[in-house]
Amino acid sequence: MANSIYRASILQSYSQLLFQPCLSNKHCVPKKTNLLCFASSQLNPARSEVSFCIGTHLIPHPNKVERGGEDAFFVSNFKGGVIAVADGVSGWAEQNVDPSLFSKELMANASSLVGNLEVNYDPQILIRKAHAATCSKGSATAIVAMLERNGTMKVASVGDCGLRVIRKGQIIFSTTPQEHYFDCPYQLSSELVGQTYLDAVVSSVELVEGDTIVMGSDGLFDNVFDGEIVSTLAAHSDVVEA
Amino acid sequence: MANSIYRASILQSYSQLLFQPCLSNKHCVPKKTNLLCFASSQLNPARSEVSFCIGTHLIPHPNKVERGGEDAFFVSNFKGGVIAVADGVSGWAEQNVDPSLFSKELMANASSLVGNLEVNYDPQILIRKAHAATCSKGSATAIVAMLERNGTMKVASVGDCGLRVIRKGQIIFSTTPQEHYFDCPYQLSSELVGQTYLDAVVSSVELVEGDTIVMGSDGLFDNVFDGEIVSTLAAHSDVVEA
Repeated sequence: MANSIYRASILQSYSQLLFQPCLSNKHCVPKKTNLLCFASSQLNPARSEVSFCIGTHLIPHPNKVERGGEDAFFVSNFKGGVIAVADGVSGWAEQNVDPSLFSKELMANASSLVGNLEVNYDPQILIRKAHAATCSKGSATAIVAMLERNGTMKVASVGDCGLRVIRKGQIIFSTTPQEHYFDCPYQLSSELVGQTYLDAVVSSVELVEGDTIVMGSDGLFDNVFDGEIVSTLAAHSDVVEA
Repeated sequence: MANSIYRASILQSYSQLLFQPCLSNKHCVPKKTNLLCFASSQLNPARSEVSFCIGTHLIPHPNKVERGGEDAFFVSNFKGGVIAVADGVSGWAEQNVDPSLFSKELMANASSLVGNLEVNYDPQILIRKAHAATCSKGSATAIVAMLERNGTMKVASVGDCGLRVIRKGQIIFSTTPQEHYFDCPYQLSSELVGQTYLDAVVSSVELVEGDTIVMGSDGLFDNVFDGEIVSTLAAHSDVVEA
């Protein structure tokens, strides 16, 4: 039954996005092969503007390597930058539905809708429209963050994907997961029993230059303590010093 | 020396504020003696507006009962409602400075500045102006939350006071403490070595009717697990059903 779908814990499986706002008028050099850097083309001499420097990393669960895992994500350089992660609910495999199809289509739709006028650069509306446009059978948790050039990062999340903001070696902002019960997160679904954009937790945080944002599925945050994320970042400052 | 000030852990000492947004056009009845309820006088038939229903509780550390503890707070019904907590840094007692004076004056100043035009209903600016107006010697951590009638709650925090938003039995939003090192939080100070409003973490979250907000000093969050806060609220639904 569709309402019995829930997610198995995904040991060693996660998608991780690593971001750092940088002054748009700074020269940003990607230090790692898969780091993307978005520098603004619109300089405002009156005040500094920020945008994301972005790196991504996807490690499928060992049992799911052949299919590439069930996580999906996208990044965009629209305005200050948009980042998003979706995690397909693995329970669908028991019904012979590939759990990755829903999350991948959801992210593809979200990516194409980022600049949509009706979305109005609102992460909750982006989730609504991307969900409505997704035809695949399945369900997924999802998180979207949109950075305004003034430093405001708006976040909408349904389920247990997560985001941390690290400033001066400390986590200063953190999302919290939503779940119905253990291992059954809130989820956007092809079925009526699932959640919608109305169930999203919508928040925002004011970023400053040098903040690092780590976004990922529960596969990251269930297996890596926050302190380990902070110490890993501190030990690899070349990654975040773009 | 002023820069050696740090805070001793305050076992069983905390101030706790308990809030629940309620539809402004609902009849809100305080169920506890010290519950305050603010109902809007400006109804908008086109959309529901929210405001806080507020209860407060202050439990000084057993060793500080005579002086009433070092925490201070205020509540206001300006717009959707304003709530704030400050926690005087106890290390000042070693220099024969009453640690409660700074926190109490800070909150008194903040309370009087809530409607100030320059504050512009911005919690970070309220911290800046209240800090600038405070003459007492000492230092304090502080958190301020301001609710817009459309449901947006803006939060600014310096140090390790905290806030949780509980929705449908789950914490959906949580602040994170800032500290220099163990037991030495970021703090607004009478001395130049302290932090300022520029060090505040500034965030916001979209609230809906029925959300419960728990705000307190570290004395609450250091001694009561989040799960205990949630279960306590669930066991006392009469408190939050205003």
